[in-house]
Formats: sequence, C-alpha cells, structure tokens
Amino acid sequence: MKKRVLLRIISLFLSVLPTVSLFSQTKPDIDEDALFIRQIHDVALTQSNCYPWLHFLTKKIGARLAGSPQAAAAVEYTRQMLDSLGLDSVWLQPCTVPHWVRGEKEIVRITQSDMGSVELHALALGNSIGTGEAGISAEVVRVMGLDEIEKLGEAKIKGKIIFFDRPFDATKINTFEAYGGAVDQRGNGPSEAAKYGAVGVLVRSMASGINDVPHTGGLIYREGLPQIPACAISTNDAELLGRLMKKSQVKVFIRTNCEMLADQHSYNVIGEIRGSEHPNEIIVVGGHLDSWDVGEGAHDDGAGCVQSMDVLQLFKRLNYKPKHTIRCVLFMNEENGLRGGTAYGDEAKRKGEYHLVAIESDRGGFVPRGFTVDGETAIFADKFPKMQAWSNVLEPYNLTIKKGGGGADISPLKKQNTLLIGYEPDSQRYFEYHHTAADVFEAVNKRELELGTAAMTSLIFLLDKYGLN
Amino acid sequence: MKKRVLLRIISLFLSVLPTVSLFSQTKPDIDEDALFIRQIHDVALTQSNCYPWLHFLTKKIGARLAGSPQAAAAVEYTRQMLDSLGLDSVWLQPCTVPHWVRGEKEIVRITQSDMGSVELHALALGNSIGTGEAGISAEVVRVMGLDEIEKLGEAKIKGKIIFFDRPFDATKINTFEAYGGAVDQRGNGPSEAAKYGAVGVLVRSMASGINDVPHTGGLIYREGLPQIPACAISTNDAELLGRLMKKSQVKVFIRTNCEMLADQHSYNVIGEIRGSEHPNEIIVVGGHLDSWDVGEGAHDDGAGCVQSMDVLQLFKRLNYKPKHTIRCVLFMNEENGLRGGTAYGDEAKRKGEYHLVAIESDRGGFVPRGFTVDGETAIFADKFPKMQAWSNVLEPYNLTIKKGGGGADISPLKKQNTLLIGYEPDSQRYFEYHHTAADVFEAVNKRELELGTAAMTSLIFLLDKYGLN
Repeated sequence: MKKRVLLRIISLFLSVLPTVSLFSQTKPDIDEDALFIRQIHDVALTQSNCYPWLHFLTKKIGARLAGSPQAAAAVEYTRQMLDSLGLDSVWLQPCTVPHWVRGEKEIVRITQSDMGSVELHALALGNSIGTGEAGISAEVVRVMGLDEIEKLGEAKIKGKIIFFDRPFDATKINTFEAYGGAVDQRGNGPSEAAKYGAVGVLVRSMASGINDVPHTGGLIYREGLPQIPACAISTNDAELLGRLMKKSQVKVFIRTNCEMLADQHSYNVIGEIRGSEHPNEIIVVGGHLDSWDVGEGAHDDGAGCVQSMDVLQLFKRLNYKPKHTIRCVLFMNEENGLRGGTAYGDEAKRKGEYHLVAIESDRGGFVPRGFTVDGETAIFADKFPKMQAWSNVLEPYNLTIKKGGGGADISPLKKQNTLLIGYEPDSQRYFEYHHTAADVFEAVNKRELELGTAAMTSLIFLLDKYGLN
Repeated sequence: MKKRVLLRIISLFLSVLPTVSLFSQTKPDIDEDALFIRQIHDVALTQSNCYPWLHFLTKKIGARLAGSPQAAAAVEYTRQMLDSLGLDSVWLQPCTVPHWVRGEKEIVRITQSDMGSVELHALALGNSIGTGEAGISAEVVRVMGLDEIEKLGEAKIKGKIIFFDRPFDATKINTFEAYGGAVDQRGNGPSEAAKYGAVGVLVRSMASGINDVPHTGGLIYREGLPQIPACAISTNDAELLGRLMKKSQVKVFIRTNCEMLADQHSYNVIGEIRGSEHPNEIIVVGGHLDSWDVGEGAHDDGAGCVQSMDVLQLFKRLNYKPKHTIRCVLFMNEENGLRGGTAYGDEAKRKGEYHLVAIESDRGGFVPRGFTVDGETAIFADKFPKMQAWSNVLEPYNLTIKKGGGGADISPLKKQNTLLIGYEPDSQRYFEYHHTAADVFEAVNKRELELGTAAMTSLIFLLDKYGLN
C-alpha cells in the first residue's frame, strides 16, 4: 500500500470520526448536537449544490407544468442529479397527470367604460376552459366573495362576467393567512358564478402587492355545473376596474385559448439513503417538481426540490449514516391535480410503508423562520412536544417549531399516522412571485436558499438521531 | 354647530378612546399592550408613508453623499415631510461635513497577465485620493489581511499595488459578523500598505455574494502616513485576479479621479413629539440621510430614515400622546465622517439633555428580526433585563431582543448613559446592496419596510409607557 493511499484512508477515517462519535452514546447531547448542526450549516453555506441545481431547473428547463415536455425534462434532470449522489436507490414512481395548456396569450379588455377601452394584465386560471376564437363579451358584476353570488341570484348574475375582487388582508403578518382568506374566489368562484348563469369570471390576483403582475393558479370546476372561462387580472387592474365600475357600467371582452388535453404519463422522482437501524421507518423530505407555465417556478417550487435533494447530499458530504431511511421525494402535479402526492400516498398504503415524518418545502426559497407541524390529533399530541425540546439547538439559526400546516403533497400521509412538517421560510415576499412570470431564478437568494437546506437537514438529523417515540 | 361637525367631533373622540384607556392604569397590562401593538401593525401595513417617502428620496433625489447638492435636497425634503406631520417641533441642526467627489469613472485594468488585458469592475473607495490623470501602474501583491503586510515588509511592498483579498466568512449566519471580519482591509488597508511604500490598493468588495458588483465604502487615512489611492473590485474580479496571480506576475493600471474638496455646511434633520410627563427624557429614533454616491441609498439608509419619520407619523395617526419626548433624528454624514452623529452628541452634552434611549435603523429595510441592545456596563445591566420582559408581546411579530450593537450615529450618546438599540432586520441580503449601484428603491420590499416601522414603533411604545427605571 502506497503512503498516499494510506494517508487518504487515515484522512477519510478522521473525517468520519465526528459522525461516529455521535452514536457512541444514547442520551441527548446538546453540545454534540449543536456541533453537528453547526457543521451542517458550514457545509450548506460553502459546498451545497442547491443553487446551481436551481439554475438548471429554472434557466435551462424553465416553467414545467404537469404534462409538459419541460416537466419530463425536470424528471430526467433531477433523477440524474440524485443518481450522482451515491444514494442507496433512486427511482421514478409513475403517476398520470392532467395536461392543461394555455395556448395563445389571453386577451382581457375593458370595451366599455368611463375611460373607454383598456387592455388588462391577465392570465387564464389553470384548468380553465377557453372562450373559443370569438371570445366572450359581457357586463361586469363585482363581488367581494362567494356569498355575494348567492345573494345576487340568477336575476343579476345570468349572462354576466363576475369579478371577484376581495383583496389580501394586508394586516396579516403571515401572508399565507391573507392568501387563505382570498383564494376561495379563485378556486371555487368560477363554479359558484356558473351556478347562477354567469358566462365568465375575472379574479383579482392572489397577491400581497399592488402592481401589474397577474397571478395564475388552479380553479376547480364542480361536477354537474357548467364550465365557464376564468382569468386573473393584476391587482392594479383590479383597482382600476373597481374604480371604473363605480362611475358607469363596464363591459369586458375575454378571449382565452386554453384547453385541457388528454392525461399524460409522468413521475415522482425519488432517492433515498437506507436507514442503518430502522430501515422501515421512513423520513420523507420533498417539494414539487411541476410549476405553473409562466415564469420559471423558482420559488414555487424549484427551491423546495433542490433543497430536498441537497438534504441527502449534505448527509453524504458529512458522512452521516442515518438510522432511519431518509427519502427525498420530488412530487409531480401539485399545482393542478396533486396526482403525484396522491400516487405516493396510495403506494405507501398499499405497501404498508411506515412514514415517521414527512417534511415539505413549498413556501419559497426565502430566509428560514422554522417549521410548522401537523398530524392526526393523537399523533400530534404525542410527538409535537418532543420536537419542541429541540428548540435550544435550533435557536442560533433563528428556527422555531410551531403548530401549523404540513404541505399539499404530503397531506395524503396524514391519515397514515405520519407527522407532517412544513418548512417555513419568511412569507413576506412570496405572494409577489407565486404563480407569476416574476417567479424566476434571480428572485431567489443563494444564502437564503442554502440556509433553508441547512434548516431542514438539521431538523431531520434530530428526528433521525432521537426518533419521536 | 352643524350636525356634520358634531358627528365628526364624536368620531374623533371615539378614535382617541383606545389610546386614553391605555393610561387609565399604572400596572403593565399585557392584553392592552398586545392590542395597541396590533393596532400599530395594522396602521403601519395599511396607511404608512414610509414607502412613498423612500420612493421620493431614492428616485427623485437619489444618491446623496454628504456635501452634495442631493444631500441638501434630502435635508429639505425630509424637513418638509416632518413639517407636515403636525409635530411639536421640527428643526435643522447644523454640522460641517467633508465633501468627497468621485469625479470621472475610475479605471482598473489588468495590463499584464496570463489572460492579457482585463478591465475590472471597480469603485474608488470613499475619501480616497485620485491617481492623477496619468494613473498608476504596478505589479500586484496579494495579501489576506493587514498582518501579512508587516510580514512582507518594505522589500516586497514598496512600489507595488497591494490587493487585500480576504473574503467574507460565508458560514457566519449573521452577515454583519462576516462584514466585521473583513472590513479592516478597506478601512485601514490603504494606510497600512502605504506605511511600507505601496503605491496603491485594491480591496475585494465587502460582499456576501460572488458577482460583478463592486462595493465602495470609506477608508481612513492614518495621520502621518502617505495617502495612496484605493479601489474596491467586484468579488468575481477578485476571484479572477487571485487565479491569474497563481499563474504569473500580474500588473494593474489604476486611474481614479476622486478628490476631497473643502468642507460644506449641512444639517441633521430633527422632529419631535414632546412628552406629556417626562419632556426632558428623550427617546431618539433615527437613521442617516446621507448615502454613498452610487445607487440610490435605498437600504443604506433611506430605509432607516423613512422608518424613523414614520414612527412619529404612526403615533400621530394613532393619537398616541407619549409621556417621554420622542425625537426623530436623520443624521448627516454617517458614511464618511460621522459629523452629524458627533454634532448631535456634542450638543446633547452641552445642553445637558438626557437621552433615555436611542434607536437606530441602519441595517437595511429587510424583514424584522428584532433589536440588539448596547450601553455602558451599569446602564446595560440595569435596563436590558427590563426590556426582555416585553418579549411576550413582541413574539407574535417575530421580534427578539438581544445583546448587540446600537448604531454608528447614536454611538456618541453611549457615554452619556443612553441605552443604545439597533433595529435588526434580517441580514442575509444586505451585503449584496450595501454601498453599490444595486442599492435602489426596487430592492426594498414595501411590507418588509413597513413591518420595520411597526417593530420600532412597538418597542418605543413600550419604552415610553413603562420607562426603564
């Protein structure tokens, strides 16, 4: 054996040492945990790949709505990247996805108003039908919520375009609460309006700011009701439309060219490090690989995907050998169907897999705030307090553990007694990018993204080391 | 009296009610405090003026280095805005400021290297002398810190251009620590190099990212040493220069056209609401009005100025009548002389004014993290624990109170037994904008800015209501 090789072996051995020592005891050791979490952050901030991965996903592939060629490219790219990490296994989990296409750019135009004709900044809502070549033209009725539709009734709704204009509540400190207080207009507004004979729907964009950027997002057509076309307009244009309607009757022309095509085959992309002691207890970490068809899906949810991949890479770089199986899952079709999340949950149930915990990062690549925890009542009551005991070692990184949502893709696991955890970055800027052309690589900060990876890796380390029993 | 006027009076009375009730008791009331802090946030997020003020300061005035016409415009603009708030008094406090000008754009060019000639992204350091029309040309010596200069000595330094290349430590979670670990190269490097005969200095930009943006900032020429010209180069160019120097000797040409002109008259801008119970106990809140001469001084420190002005406006809007005098001070010349802060401290001492506390916002307009507190040992030991008792009511807004720095402008008050508080926004992105052409209005997020105003107003409300004795 040459001296060089011997030195390399010694050096490898030494580099493994801190990890090995972590398992030389059974009781929690705050100092040792703090040291390892410090190492996680050091490596994340200096050697992680999440940022260049995100660059490829956003700039070389771009928007990747389920069913699109770009979604297939994203599957292949992330599979290759996971394959390069030396994991125990990497595979694709099939799922069937809807295939909605926007078609030629939509037109939303005020055709009659105090200001005459005005072109609006608009995006057809995802899953919406198109208007057909001729478009639709009708008087606009403005409402502030679904309940107003019922009050107005068929007499005032029939033949009209309904404009849902309830804004975000700016006083909510967490912008997701403001989103939650407005998004029913986008999801359910079109069917609710159609029930009373409306011919089309406009929705004020689900946005925290006032500007010209329209935000798309999914609508859900209710069974048994007519399907009518629906568009989001920018918040600036919503303000304008509201003002004009106070002065005189306003008519709007809408032409959208979107359509729902036949379902396509697609995949969740999965990679795992098999647990050394509890291989059948799985810790999932994931985000969703699909995005809307505008922008580049950088914050939503390229960030969550590359962070989840990076968690596994960090553990490999640190020579950490988990006790539990740690599995990265990049879900397909969160945006307009949740077929990937559903397929994952179904297969887990069919195979009788046990998921100790599932963590999702799907709130953007912003600076970490902490984690929100969810679960069936008994599971939550049992396990949440155990997690809170780790607050001390997470505090130097400004990470808190609170009750709150998990994530859409992992939600099917809730009934399977899995504790669900949502990674929580700061929320202030998210709804300026969400579902827009502005959600591009440049909107993500490298350090903030990397700190998110480090936060998730740190929590998973604690979950793996101490379990939750 | 007309019915309309009567109704208005009743409505005004009702609007004052919640404030009045705050003073109907003497013991701390957490529920009532929580309610008022909630109101502060509601008003800040829906009615505050800090964002449009910042727009004017950055887009209509722009960069405003001390001594420049734009600095005078900023004085006049903010005085007018404070005048419009119905404060008890608004005035200008004179100070004399240095007047440094950059002159024609600097040139920093590699003239001899493995890659041949390469133009670098550079900015002369503030206060630096110029090279003269002919420029300077010399071989480059790379060092990682001031101590290396002494080791190399005159033999290796004389006649050379010294390149200080120690980067930010990316593993520091708070980027101000990384800045603190590198900035001596910019501030003291030029004089240290001149001591051993160097003819010029290049400094790796004080930046957390790797890109093409050079960061300027002040140098301090030490008395009795030769003054030599100094420039910052972008981090990308620092990496390039470092790589090229490993391959072969590198020569660089520098031409800068900056000069220090005669001192100018300028002002701190001050406005106050006089205290109802303790008018002679002053709470200062401030930022600095000057900025570097590139970009628009949006984060540094337009944000801190408009937030400080907005604190007074919020109290007026909420009909809050403070017990202590609350004074907004917009300091002049923080960047290259601290003359405004010094003048303020001197006058306070001369007049025997007592400042209970001084709060500075000079770390950018990012999302709030909390406050850092500083003071002379006895003052700090006495007052800091009292502040920590307010953590509960600040926690819903993600605000923490920790030991740490106050701010440069308020630092002269430290010896006058004033507790110093630094408003602490999140630090991750600050050193991508700090002292650069990228520090523009668009880099500041409206909600994040407003939340900062609300955070400072909330803390000042508590300081005013309960005092620190």
